[in-house]
Amino acid sequence: MLLRNCRFIVTQNEKREILENNDILIENGKILEIGTNLSKKDEIIDCSNKIIIPGLVNCHTHAAMNLLRGVSDDKNLQEWLNEDIWPMESKLNGELCYHGTLLAAAEMLLTGTTYFNDMYFHTEYVARAAEKSGMRCFIGKVMFDFFDGEKTGKIIEDSEKEIKKILDLKNERIKPTVTPHSVETCSDELLTQSRDLANKYNLFLHMHLSETEKEVNDCLKTRGKRPLILLNELGLLKNKFIGAHGIHFSEEEINILNKSKPFIVYNPCSNAKLASGICPARELNSICLGTDSVASNNNLNLFEEMKFGVFLQRVKYNDVGAMSTQRIFDSATMEGARALGMEKELGSIEIGKKADLVLIDKNNIFLNPNYNIISNLVYSFNGAVSDVIVNGKFAVRNKEIVNFDLGELIKKVEDFRG
Amino acid sequence: MLLRNCRFIVTQNEKREILENNDILIENGKILEIGTNLSKKDEIIDCSNKIIIPGLVNCHTHAAMNLLRGVSDDKNLQEWLNEDIWPMESKLNGELCYHGTLLAAAEMLLTGTTYFNDMYFHTEYVARAAEKSGMRCFIGKVMFDFFDGEKTGKIIEDSEKEIKKILDLKNERIKPTVTPHSVETCSDELLTQSRDLANKYNLFLHMHLSETEKEVNDCLKTRGKRPLILLNELGLLKNKFIGAHGIHFSEEEINILNKSKPFIVYNPCSNAKLASGICPARELNSICLGTDSVASNNNLNLFEEMKFGVFLQRVKYNDVGAMSTQRIFDSATMEGARALGMEKELGSIEIGKKADLVLIDKNNIFLNPNYNIISNLVYSFNGAVSDVIVNGKFAVRNKEIVNFDLGELIKKVEDFRG
Repeated sequence: MLLRNCRFIVTQNEKREILENNDILIENGKILEIGTNLSKKDEIIDCSNKIIIPGLVNCHTHAAMNLLRGVSDDKNLQEWLNEDIWPMESKLNGELCYHGTLLAAAEMLLTGTTYFNDMYFHTEYVARAAEKSGMRCFIGKVMFDFFDGEKTGKIIEDSEKEIKKILDLKNERIKPTVTPHSVETCSDELLTQSRDLANKYNLFLHMHLSETEKEVNDCLKTRGKRPLILLNELGLLKNKFIGAHGIHFSEEEINILNKSKPFIVYNPCSNAKLASGICPARELNSICLGTDSVASNNNLNLFEEMKFGVFLQRVKYNDVGAMSTQRIFDSATMEGARALGMEKELGSIEIGKKADLVLIDKNNIFLNPNYNIISNLVYSFNGAVSDVIVNGKFAVRNKEIVNFDLGELIKKVEDFRG
Repeated sequence: MLLRNCRFIVTQNEKREILENNDILIENGKILEIGTNLSKKDEIIDCSNKIIIPGLVNCHTHAAMNLLRGVSDDKNLQEWLNEDIWPMESKLNGELCYHGTLLAAAEMLLTGTTYFNDMYFHTEYVARAAEKSGMRCFIGKVMFDFFDGEKTGKIIEDSEKEIKKILDLKNERIKPTVTPHSVETCSDELLTQSRDLANKYNLFLHMHLSETEKEVNDCLKTRGKRPLILLNELGLLKNKFIGAHGIHFSEEEINILNKSKPFIVYNPCSNAKLASGICPARELNSICLGTDSVASNNNLNLFEEMKFGVFLQRVKYNDVGAMSTQRIFDSATMEGARALGMEKELGSIEIGKKADLVLIDKNNIFLNPNYNIISNLVYSFNGAVSDVIVNGKFAVRNKEIVNFDLGELIKKVEDFRG
């Protein structure tokens, strides 16, 4: 495939170059060449009116929860989970999770996201939906034992089974992770066994971390230490580790984070909606971006997340310099790829990298005048991209989902009531 | 015109009813009837797959500044104005303001806004652009004398001339206002003469108010009182008065606001971007919504504004109950109309009101499943409406601007550099 005469290519390479009027040659799912007057006989796409950006990376999702959009909007995390979300989730079966994840995939693709890092139940169905959609996905079966030691072994066993199922798919786009829910719901034993499971298969750990003050206070009360200190002592930070939310940290914890460099997923909208607080992203070296589920957002649009991400930092620190436009764009591209350990293959538009590319109409109403492309993408654009390529193949073409019938899917779920 | 079989009508009437499968009959720019099986021979629009909402009201804009999108993203209000915006604005002539306003009108219409309350220079050109677009608009010539008493009389004179020009248009959609810039830039004399000018023509006052701590501190230093106290003493609150931003208020000021009921325009994105603070909307009785200009936002999408509006209140008060979904939707519809003194004619979908209506595809990816329409519109939708009717006439049809060539306009402005 040849993307000919791309008006702008936002490379996100080390120099953060924005190329004008260049071609991108794609073969076998990879970027073979970038330059002018490249030749190719077939599959030539005119991009003279397009802005090309790297596929965005959503580092914290529960995709199947697209089925629960708008079910609960005015409760804090604990009430929201206990009173509304967990009771409804208990009714979701694998088939429903498949539909919910496919719906999420459509929403992510149509807003330029090509990779998501998911934590949920019925992971085999989530994986199947991701496979169908054409997206990339890391998926882990969420684990909690609520401190009931008799359950711990079985939970790890089940999780390992799910890992094997994902590995058996032998689909390079779909990979397993190990996902203990949080220190609020997992015993020390479950946490250490999770660590060992991750080590055994060389997978990364992905869990909720310091999302609410209650979580921190409970951890202090029952374990005598703060969540990140606990995880550090239990050896979980020696693995590749992704902590979602990361709002309530002590200075000591921030030092640990900045030294051992696990990634924190900043989820601005979800955290604001649930009034959990604001992640101290400004003070952290390794930040990527996530939407959380639509049930606490209520969408998966990373463009909105970037804008609100910068604005919340400015509000938190009462300082226009609290986060730059480039940094938030990085967190949704290169830093997202780095968080997932995929920085050599994804996150920027460079020769040799995989072809995960998003095409945006340059004449979009939100993108003109065009003083500053990154600014327009972060603060103005509403996410309505025109085309999405994953692994060298179109997953969205002319604003339409390629790999499944979205209209049919919406009919199936429009009146879903749990 | 007959909107037949509207799947949902979000009426925003007193009971906040949402009607299903009703028709809306429109004649002479007004809603003549709402019900089932209404008859009309021609101009029948099938709405069986549409959600109909009242046209949104943007209560604080500087529309022509669409030309300055993304020119300055990382400065606080004072630096942003002095170093970047005012020098660029000094180069804008009437013709450029016409194009900028038309671009803003396109963006507002395509995101469901039908009415905007503008403050700018070259008001005749702004009015012409609003007229062309089909939108409704209040427009005032911005006034400041920077405490130079020799300028005050001429400024008021010029403003009166502009008022007469707008009145001479005899277009019921376009109306004049009186717009002193702020206590930061206007002498007491200019403020009182503004009050008298507004009284003379029975117009409302629209000005910036308590946007930054600096404004409040300077006012205390030079006038010995806070901005709202000053305006109250000068008699400006006896007029119909709209204060934009309204962030830094004392308890006394909040009491005055809640007693005399001038409207405060909540501008969540602009205030967050410039790190000015968060409006205490929760504590105020009369709140409407605004985007400010794209230069400090950077778009005019009121759907985004509603979402961030709720989220910022939750962040400010650390409380999920700080602002309800319905209240923010009201602020963009009925309360916006009330702020502009148009509540008998606009703001809701009711028999006898003017037909300012927005059509949205029910099968939009962001609006399914459909537990709660208002929630989906506020927290999930990206603003891409399908059709907009103002005064009974289409201004957007099938996502295309009706009254001017948007493609041509974008070509004109895409590389605008001031």
